[in-house]
Amino acid sequence: MASLRLAVDAMSGDHGLRSSIPATVNALNLNSALHIILVGDEPAIALALASEKFDSNRLSVHHAPDVVAMDDQPSRTLRSKKNSSMYIALELLRDGVVSAVVSAGNTGALVAMSCVVLARLPGIKRPAICAPVPALNGHTFLLDLGANVECDAQQLHHFAQMGSALCRVLDGSESPRVGLLNIGSELTKGTATIRDAAELIGADSRLNYCGFIEGGDLFSADVDVVVCDGFAGNVALKVCEGTASFIASQLRARFKKTLYGMFVGLLARPIMTAFQRDINPDRYNGAALLGLNGIVVKTHGSSGAQGFQSAIHQAARAVRNDLQSQIEKQLETTS
Amino acid sequence: MASLRLAVDAMSGDHGLRSSIPATVNALNLNSALHIILVGDEPAIALALASEKFDSNRLSVHHAPDVVAMDDQPSRTLRSKKNSSMYIALELLRDGVVSAVVSAGNTGALVAMSCVVLARLPGIKRPAICAPVPALNGHTFLLDLGANVECDAQQLHHFAQMGSALCRVLDGSESPRVGLLNIGSELTKGTATIRDAAELIGADSRLNYCGFIEGGDLFSADVDVVVCDGFAGNVALKVCEGTASFIASQLRARFKKTLYGMFVGLLARPIMTAFQRDINPDRYNGAALLGLNGIVVKTHGSSGAQGFQSAIHQAARAVRNDLQSQIEKQLETTS
Repeated sequence: MASLRLAVDAMSGDHGLRSSIPATVNALNLNSALHIILVGDEPAIALALASEKFDSNRLSVHHAPDVVAMDDQPSRTLRSKKNSSMYIALELLRDGVVSAVVSAGNTGALVAMSCVVLARLPGIKRPAICAPVPALNGHTFLLDLGANVECDAQQLHHFAQMGSALCRVLDGSESPRVGLLNIGSELTKGTATIRDAAELIGADSRLNYCGFIEGGDLFSADVDVVVCDGFAGNVALKVCEGTASFIASQLRARFKKTLYGMFVGLLARPIMTAFQRDINPDRYNGAALLGLNGIVVKTHGSSGAQGFQSAIHQAARAVRNDLQSQIEKQLETTS
Repeated sequence: MASLRLAVDAMSGDHGLRSSIPATVNALNLNSALHIILVGDEPAIALALASEKFDSNRLSVHHAPDVVAMDDQPSRTLRSKKNSSMYIALELLRDGVVSAVVSAGNTGALVAMSCVVLARLPGIKRPAICAPVPALNGHTFLLDLGANVECDAQQLHHFAQMGSALCRVLDGSESPRVGLLNIGSELTKGTATIRDAAELIGADSRLNYCGFIEGGDLFSADVDVVVCDGFAGNVALKVCEGTASFIASQLRARFKKTLYGMFVGLLARPIMTAFQRDINPDRYNGAALLGLNGIVVKTHGSSGAQGFQSAIHQAARAVRNDLQSQIEKQLETTS
């Protein structure tokens, strides 16, 4: 089994060390098999760690003088940011020092650097971004979320294979049900690309293909993995988050409108808070970059310590259950 | 001004006369300028009207022996369903007997029949489906919702022009802000088609273009019309509806879980019910088919009497404010 040693890009994301340090310390304290290398500005990390309690045998620091900014142009960072915490963390993964990388940084830069430093698996044009969205059965894995704006049928087939492997590894699901996002369930619906992809995926005996699904079915308990191009996936994810926060803000406003509402709102608070905690994106945090020579987990740029910590646990689970060879095995069968 | 005479396809949709009859009667009673021709099976309509009270000078029936089923293959209905309530309602519009058609029927068939019976406006490949989604400023008009699975830049420009005209006519907004749905706000994001469309729309001085918007911005108060291809629009609409009902079902389950929850749920019911009523799709019902020689409003197949009635009012408002010539004027400027 691969060692449970992860590299954490400590500097990237909106909150940098304010998220990565408490997340790392908590994750280490909760999982005694975990070793973490924090990559980033050594003096700043030492200062941030000074007041924390942890097993120092399982935490080390690897210095990186530079950081990728959230608004850096991804293609430029490939040349200009070779000393960044993100780049150096990926090099540690490439060199076998760690088994996975977790970063909250600029998604475009992380995808671009991963392709260059780690290289893609055979047949993969660009890695896909895959994350869970809340659903009736817990969650549904959705991919791609934006790395591949336009996709051909073969790419969608790869997404089905890789998403299926991720779902098996993270959820222990034996035979994840895979759906293709479309605008209707009839076989004649959608683009020629999607119909071709349906044939490829349906003919792959190692996949449990369950047909076309529509946007609203994302939340049903009938599907575990939903495959689409990065444009549709990104729209779906953002509309889902946008709808949830629109409803939350509208409900809050209504409870605040009258004295009666404020009273009921106070009584309802424990229930609403528990609900919000359960569907909080931070609990579902951690998008996997699939299709690379190595496990890379991206946490939301704005995620706090809790979200960052979920991503670390997800990366650890992926390493422990050998996501990498699961994906390689799936892709081998047909490519 | 065009006469306020509408044709209502009385037979189509999941509920047929059970929705169309009460909706028609209520709409007539609320708007004394309105005249309606109910198109469908005359004896059945007469029976359904027997117990209703209305001004019989403003309601007439036009017999149609056949009906388009919700699962009829759209292309086939063009030949086989020429005696359907849907087809004959569109003929009444083509012949100038009425100024608009309202139908709850099979969307694909309605689009196909509209193209054949009414014909498209010059330059329009296929009509676009445009409907409002709830947002902080009331609602945002989203198009296309599924008629045009793949679009070129010129089509997206047409959508911007027609959506802008619809928003002006229905909301009285002087200069509706138009956004293009994309997966990021930077100019380099998305497909070449979307970037080309941004140039066309940005260069059209009669449009108030406000740039790329992301899926989550649909609900903001910063945009009035959002343009995208029919695939993305359909996914966005269905994810939005799916998220809302997922949240509603999860909240209900939580309030029912404990005795305390049931008690608070009871107290909160008036507020929750008012909220649900306000964001109820039935209030926002009525999708316009834009790009035809005539006004066609599609109400949801499953809509009850209230939703159907909203669609009738929307069609009446579109006629009164001369949507047709507004759209033709917008399209003329550049095509």
